[in-house]
Amino acid sequence: MFLFTEFHNKSVGLTIKPKNVYSIFTKYQKLTFLETEDFGKVLVLDDLVQLTERDEFIYHEMISHVAINTFPRKIEKVLIIGGGDGGTAREVLKYNFIKEVHLVEIDKEVIEIAKKHMPFTAKAFEDKRLKVFIEDGRNFVRNTQNKYDVVLVDCSDPIGPSKVLFEKEFYQDCFKILKEDGIFVTQSESPFYSLDIIKDIIKNLKISFPIVKLYTANIPTYPAGYWSFTLASKVYDPLKVDMEKLKDNIKGKNLKYYNEEIHFSSFALPSYVKERLKEVLS
Amino acid sequence: MFLFTEFHNKSVGLTIKPKNVYSIFTKYQKLTFLETEDFGKVLVLDDLVQLTERDEFIYHEMISHVAINTFPRKIEKVLIIGGGDGGTAREVLKYNFIKEVHLVEIDKEVIEIAKKHMPFTAKAFEDKRLKVFIEDGRNFVRNTQNKYDVVLVDCSDPIGPSKVLFEKEFYQDCFKILKEDGIFVTQSESPFYSLDIIKDIIKNLKISFPIVKLYTANIPTYPAGYWSFTLASKVYDPLKVDMEKLKDNIKGKNLKYYNEEIHFSSFALPSYVKERLKEVLS
Repeated sequence: MFLFTEFHNKSVGLTIKPKNVYSIFTKYQKLTFLETEDFGKVLVLDDLVQLTERDEFIYHEMISHVAINTFPRKIEKVLIIGGGDGGTAREVLKYNFIKEVHLVEIDKEVIEIAKKHMPFTAKAFEDKRLKVFIEDGRNFVRNTQNKYDVVLVDCSDPIGPSKVLFEKEFYQDCFKILKEDGIFVTQSESPFYSLDIIKDIIKNLKISFPIVKLYTANIPTYPAGYWSFTLASKVYDPLKVDMEKLKDNIKGKNLKYYNEEIHFSSFALPSYVKERLKEVLS
Repeated sequence: MFLFTEFHNKSVGLTIKPKNVYSIFTKYQKLTFLETEDFGKVLVLDDLVQLTERDEFIYHEMISHVAINTFPRKIEKVLIIGGGDGGTAREVLKYNFIKEVHLVEIDKEVIEIAKKHMPFTAKAFEDKRLKVFIEDGRNFVRNTQNKYDVVLVDCSDPIGPSKVLFEKEFYQDCFKILKEDGIFVTQSESPFYSLDIIKDIIKNLKISFPIVKLYTANIPTYPAGYWSFTLASKVYDPLKVDMEKLKDNIKGKNLKYYNEEIHFSSFALPSYVKERLKEVLS
C-alpha cells in the first residue's frame, strides 16, 4: 500500500492514501498528482499538498472574495501571482464587473496538469477575460506598467521558487502597481505552525500599506487544518464593509465557504495568535 | 519506525510519530498513551486521538468558556459528563464564583492515566470544589436530584461507550437537571466530516431547548482540524452577550484561544455547513 505523508513538524502530519500516483520533475519543482477516493484529485508540489478536489473551494474562495468585497466600488482589473491551477481565477471571474484578470505563473507545467486533470479549477482558462503570463512573478511585478485594483499572491510556501514573494521589496513593488485604493492579499501559512513567518509578512507589508490585517480559514488538508491570509489595503478597511451590501454582492455566486458572516468572523484571532503578533498587529 | 495514523475516511488521516507508546485495555476501551517531540503527550482512546499536550487548550477552553460567559449572572454548579483527563474541569474551575463541579467519568483508568502522565490537565483533580463520580454518565443524569447551571458533555465519538450521550432521551434528562435558565454544551464532531451527526444532535436538542446553536474551533489534531460544539440554552442567547463585560470576566484567566471576538465569531458558519443544516438551524 502506497501512503503519502506530509509531516508538519517532527511529530504530526497529514497522510493521504491514493488510488493512483503520478510524478514529474518540472524545471522548477517536483509535481505529484494523486487520485483519492474521498478527496478526489490532489496536487502536490515538492511533497507539499497544494489542493484537493474536495476542499480547494475553501482556499480559493477565501483568497479572492474578501478583497473584492472590501471595495465599496466595482473593480475591473486583478493580478494573480501564481495560481497556476486556475482556482483563484475561477473565483475572481465570478464577478461580471471584473474585466481583466492577469495570471502570472512561473511553471507552465502546473497549468498543463490542471488543464488535463483538474477541470474543476482549470475551467477558468477558457474565460476570455483571463490572460496568462508564463513568467517569474517577481519580475512581472517589477516591470509591468499596468495598474491593478487587486493583487492576489497565490503561491506555495516561502521556500524554493516562492521565497522572493515574501520579501519586502516584492511587497513594495506590489504597492506601486496597485491603484490608489488598491488591495493586496497573500496566502500566509498556518497560524498554528508559522507565526514567525506571519509576523514577518505583516511587518514587511506595513512598511508600505496603512491597513494590514490577518484573516483565517479552516482548510482540512493544509497544516493544522488552519490557514491564514494577509490583506493589505491602501484605503478600505475590510471590517468596515456594509454586511447587507456584501450579502447582495455574492448572491448567486455559488459560494460554498465564504459568506457575509465569514467575511467578518475570519478576522477574529485566537489569543495565542494575537499574543505572538501583538507588536505587529497593534 | 512506529507510526500511528487515524484515518478520517478512506483517503485522509492524521499521522503521529511517537517517541514512546504505551497501551492498555480497560473495561471500556483501548487506551493508548503516546509521547511525541512537538505535541508532547497524546491520549488516544480506541485508536482515536482525544488530546495532545500542545493543542488540548483549544478544545477545553471552547467547551467551557462559551457557556459560562453566556450567563448574565454568576453561576455556581457545573456538571461534566466524561472529561476524565481533567482539562474541562480545569477551565471551569478558573472562575472563582463556581462553587461545585461534578465530573462523571465511566472509566476510572482514564483519570488514573491523566493523574500519572498529564499534570497539565489533571491538576484539576486537586481542587476541592471538584467531586468525581466513577459512573455511567447516562445513569447519573437519569437519577441525580441535583440541579445544575451548566451541563458539559466532554465525550468521545458517538460509537462505543459514548453513543448514548447523543440520544434525545439523554438530552431530555439533561434539560430536567438544569436550572430554569441553564445551558447545555456537547462536543459535536467535525463539521467537515460529520454533518449528518451534527444535524441529528441539533434536531434532538431542539425537542427540549428553545435556543440551539452550533459553534466551531480549530483543533489541529482533530479530524479536518475543524471541530464543533452544540450549545443548547433555556433562556440566554450566546450572541446577545455584552462584549465588554465578557472581556472583563475572562481577564487574568490565562486563556490561550478563547477571547471576546472568538466568542462571537465561533458561531459564524461556512456556507457548506449552513446549507446542510438549514432545516434544523432555521
